[in-house]
Amino acid sequence: MDWITIDACRRCTDLPTEAEIRGWVRTRRDSKGGFSFLEVNDGTCLGNLQVVVPGELENYASEVQKLTAGCSVIIRGQLLESPAKGQATELHAESVQVTGWCDGETYPLQKKRHSFEKLREWSHLRARTNTLGAVMRVRNRLSQSIHRFFDEAGFFCLHTPIVTASDCEGAGEMFRVTTLNLDKLAGSNRPLDAGQDFFGKPTHLTVSGQLEGETYASAMSKIYTFGPTFRAENSNTSRHLAEFWMVEPEAAFYDLSDNMQLAERFLKRIFSDCLDSCAEDMAFFDERIEKGKLAQLQDVVDKPFEHMTYTDAVDRLTSSDESFEYPVKWGIDLQAEHEKYLTQLVDGPLILTDYPASIKPFYMRVSDDGKTVAAMDVLVPGVGEIIGGSQREERLDVLQRRMAEAGLDEQEYWWYVDLRRYGSVPHAGFGLGLERAVQYVTGMTNIRDVIPFPRTPGNADF
Amino acid sequence: MDWITIDACRRCTDLPTEAEIRGWVRTRRDSKGGFSFLEVNDGTCLGNLQVVVPGELENYASEVQKLTAGCSVIIRGQLLESPAKGQATELHAESVQVTGWCDGETYPLQKKRHSFEKLREWSHLRARTNTLGAVMRVRNRLSQSIHRFFDEAGFFCLHTPIVTASDCEGAGEMFRVTTLNLDKLAGSNRPLDAGQDFFGKPTHLTVSGQLEGETYASAMSKIYTFGPTFRAENSNTSRHLAEFWMVEPEAAFYDLSDNMQLAERFLKRIFSDCLDSCAEDMAFFDERIEKGKLAQLQDVVDKPFEHMTYTDAVDRLTSSDESFEYPVKWGIDLQAEHEKYLTQLVDGPLILTDYPASIKPFYMRVSDDGKTVAAMDVLVPGVGEIIGGSQREERLDVLQRRMAEAGLDEQEYWWYVDLRRYGSVPHAGFGLGLERAVQYVTGMTNIRDVIPFPRTPGNADF
Repeated sequence: MDWITIDACRRCTDLPTEAEIRGWVRTRRDSKGGFSFLEVNDGTCLGNLQVVVPGELENYASEVQKLTAGCSVIIRGQLLESPAKGQATELHAESVQVTGWCDGETYPLQKKRHSFEKLREWSHLRARTNTLGAVMRVRNRLSQSIHRFFDEAGFFCLHTPIVTASDCEGAGEMFRVTTLNLDKLAGSNRPLDAGQDFFGKPTHLTVSGQLEGETYASAMSKIYTFGPTFRAENSNTSRHLAEFWMVEPEAAFYDLSDNMQLAERFLKRIFSDCLDSCAEDMAFFDERIEKGKLAQLQDVVDKPFEHMTYTDAVDRLTSSDESFEYPVKWGIDLQAEHEKYLTQLVDGPLILTDYPASIKPFYMRVSDDGKTVAAMDVLVPGVGEIIGGSQREERLDVLQRRMAEAGLDEQEYWWYVDLRRYGSVPHAGFGLGLERAVQYVTGMTNIRDVIPFPRTPGNADF
Repeated sequence: MDWITIDACRRCTDLPTEAEIRGWVRTRRDSKGGFSFLEVNDGTCLGNLQVVVPGELENYASEVQKLTAGCSVIIRGQLLESPAKGQATELHAESVQVTGWCDGETYPLQKKRHSFEKLREWSHLRARTNTLGAVMRVRNRLSQSIHRFFDEAGFFCLHTPIVTASDCEGAGEMFRVTTLNLDKLAGSNRPLDAGQDFFGKPTHLTVSGQLEGETYASAMSKIYTFGPTFRAENSNTSRHLAEFWMVEPEAAFYDLSDNMQLAERFLKRIFSDCLDSCAEDMAFFDERIEKGKLAQLQDVVDKPFEHMTYTDAVDRLTSSDESFEYPVKWGIDLQAEHEKYLTQLVDGPLILTDYPASIKPFYMRVSDDGKTVAAMDVLVPGVGEIIGGSQREERLDVLQRRMAEAGLDEQEYWWYVDLRRYGSVPHAGFGLGLERAVQYVTGMTNIRDVIPFPRTPGNADF
């Protein structure tokens, strides 16, 4: 007999049936009637399966009564309708095989509630807790949904390079990648010769796959990347990771309006998939992590996104009665407090467009007014910016001028500039930080708790 | 009217219909009858759409007759059944808008045939060629299919860290990741202080997500990773990349037999998806790149994989009449020539199992004979090893002994060893290099031609 998941056991309606489960004990309770209750979880769902173990089993006293949280077991028996409240089914054990014991004295995940901070010290075990397990299932669902959305919409999945000799933004704080022996280098007392390095020149970890993505969009029409990106910012906040996953679609012949529609359809789809496929986990987040989350997400799925230009947003902010820490005037980069005010104003997601050229990168398309670019940010309540994107500058002369203004060497980007020489097309794209999306969906406040093993200054454990 | 892809135009059966396409001109041919034929491609399929442009168009002489390979165009017209052979439909243009010219004098992709080596110098443009476009569509299909297979099989997508302080194999040649200023370091004449680095200790790019994957399999039962991995080997061959994408499933309660079944189902599924969904591209590879490819892949999909132990394989090799460059005896690592002989012997994929412990990493499960481990390699004709995997050592004492033998510091792997302390379970998994799989499916001989931007010693361009 093959075993079945605990998720399947809990949903099973064809009862009674024989079943075998494999998982980890969460709790054991011995009844005075001479039998025991085990709560067993295998990570496939939030809930446990209740297992009733009769005292008659051969290893009842020798093993079953010694089971503690964390022990792994294989249990066979009859899956029945449960008379108890809050669960549809329960398993009546006919055999319990212990595959791995768990020392209750040293096992970190005891019954007591641990802080998320503490759990991070046990990142190799924390997915065994209710909250982190639920986060990882939602993260999985978002990831699967992202691939499906783009596949169905005719976007090709593209793996852009992680190690790169160019810098997308022209100004990112980047990690250097090297095979030079740093210990030897420190003692060498000779100038560095980057030509001796593995790639023959200085290389870094990518901050974005966009520029490379544009080259493939100029050949295959619609592509998206979904991979790790890196920032070497020394920011020890609950909003920053040094390593995170980013989704970046890029489409030829898209203008800003197409791009906004794509972003809206995309977010609605991935949130809707989470609500549908992770209903139990989502109910948990709604109840335990952020009240009202379900209604908020359903709203995003149902309501059309509001649009507002940056200029209008600045007008709204300056004419409001709110007192902001950062004063608002046209030309500033909007702060979290401003974004929060605006999302509250429209009571839902908001797409801001047409930002000042001076605060946006060289590759964004300059508008006819000469002052703004065809940029867009999608803001959501609570999290703020979740998507940033733009129509790209497809005109060779304008791009060259913008690069010069930004102090970039056109020679270094020869291949990027080539796209405007050889069959240039209007095109647009955006970036979504996966972790921001998981935070928004789950309501988790610290970004370190929505990625399996967070990398932050001083932390590269596991 | 929205535009539609050229793939959709070529498959359209509801004719005649109005259509707009957007893409790049591949060729132009002017007819003496006062009209022109354009072949237009948008990367959504191998074939072009033939467009008939009447001389009556306003911009016929001023623009249409100046179109060259690479120009981008937006064309509207009537999509009709084509009287010509080799194409089902053709577009009769009612308007041709040129969105981007392409200087025929400098555009690298002229009509003449270029070597794959030459095309690599234009990696930003090479997806516009038939072969590389087809490769990238197949690569996309494999990637999508990989996610679907594991999602449907109940595996959770897991993003394991790219930057890591541990070394999965204990012996990989790794890239160092640092924010230290190497120029300053070279002149410092002081010993390196890794504590001053971003993560407070030396970090590297991952060679595998397996160990971290095992931690999550021990909580969520079945996971898979699909991400970039890195090798700093100075190998300038057609089989090595410094950066490549790897798929690594890991399942709790799986033994070697479960693992073998999973690998077989997995390969059959992803190959079958390519045959079904990329039929035109696959026919192209069969005809132009490797004759017989279609039949070979269909065979893999249809036939059960052969199984053979390493020991049996060595017997077969030593008793064969073949003269091998590398002599065979029990205990050696099999070479490409040996694998080739074995796959020819069984005329299809072959799973070799039970390798000598001495040539396999510490984490593989030691068999009862004490000499072998529960390892498996899946070999396919032409490519050799495409999958490597094993059942993992779940016994604490045996794992500790193996780590000591391998000279590894158990303290550094405390979290990995913890898995055997707290609810240890039998578990197994494998790794598939995506690029090897793309090579096998397409027949492309150089691995640099199956990844968008290859990274090899001395090459980190684009």
